Amino acid sequence: MLGIDPGLTRCGVGVVDVAPDRSATLVYVGVLRSDHGDPIERRLASIAAGLRAVIDDHGPAVVAVERVFAQHNRQTVMGTAQASGIALLVAGERGLPAATHTPTEIKAAITGYGAADKRQVQAMVARILRLDEVPKPADAADALALALCHAWRGGPVAAASGPLTPAQRAWADAERLARR
Amino acid sequence: MLGIDPGLTRCGVGVVDVAPDRSATLVYVGVLRSDHGDPIERRLASIAAGLRAVIDDHGPAVVAVERVFAQHNRQTVMGTAQASGIALLVAGERGLPAATHTPTEIKAAITGYGAADKRQVQAMVARILRLDEVPKPADAADALALALCHAWRGGPVAAASGPLTPAQRAWADAERLARR
Repeated sequence: MLGIDPGLTRCGVGVVDVAPDRSATLVYVGVLRSDHGDPIERRLASIAAGLRAVIDDHGPAVVAVERVFAQHNRQTVMGTAQASGIALLVAGERGLPAATHTPTEIKAAITGYGAADKRQVQAMVARILRLDEVPKPADAADALALALCHAWRGGPVAAASGPLTPAQRAWADAERLARR
Repeated sequence: MLGIDPGLTRCGVGVVDVAPDRSATLVYVGVLRSDHGDPIERRLASIAAGLRAVIDDHGPAVVAVERVFAQHNRQTVMGTAQASGIALLVAGERGLPAATHTPTEIKAAITGYGAADKRQVQAMVARILRLDEVPKPADAADALALALCHAWRGGPVAAASGPLTPAQRAWADAERLARR
């Protein structure tokens, strides 16, 4: 699962491997940067090239991209929206399905609480992935949170209708334990 | 000169050839469409493929993309911003310089009046390119207006500092004539 926190100056990228029991392992985390002084077309091309390299190196099955809202800071929102378009395009061109999640969905999936603050989410990401430290910068941790969010929301427990099977109950328990 | 009026559902594309005397000829005009029901990553990939085909067929030297503003209709602005990112990316990946222009700049360049209405701009585009009819749909005409805007604004007269040379004055006169 590849999570992308889109941005022009810093684009967070996180790859996690999520087992059927929903335990998760860090595969890759990083930040793609583009130079503020470069022309926009070259910045976007450099982000696209970086995203393609991550996909080719790690072969994710799905790409999740944080959803961008127009009401945010107007100065940067257009660049963020353009970067999110690049992320979705690269997924589409590699034949990978893409999904978007809102920050609230991500917070709720990771901490169980949609209004959690960023640091709570980041600390939980470190705990879930059994990391000694919170991944830095924040964009990198956000990308991991997004990948976990999508893996869990799209996973078998979330999609189940009706009562849980014993195996699903075991997964749900493991998830609860991981969140403690 | 390739002008792109970015959009997810309809992306206007216009190629014009602008001579040193600033007279302009229509090379290509069209609209790339993507299906509203398709996943966003496939819609963006289909627009990117269409833009690359236009670039490869017509070999423009420069790409101009209409600038998108966050304050527009929130429902569609994100898709438009993403499509504009794709347009800029494709230019960057083909090694072409890209520029953006605001609707006001385009109107002013084409009609001499930044608050001109869309129909005035479209009628002037048809006149400048010596077309019998206004190109349809509007996105196609807008893309041509953008290409003309960039050719003229970025051209030698606009860039000149100090008094015009006789040749520059001749260009400026030809431009004024074309606008009558």
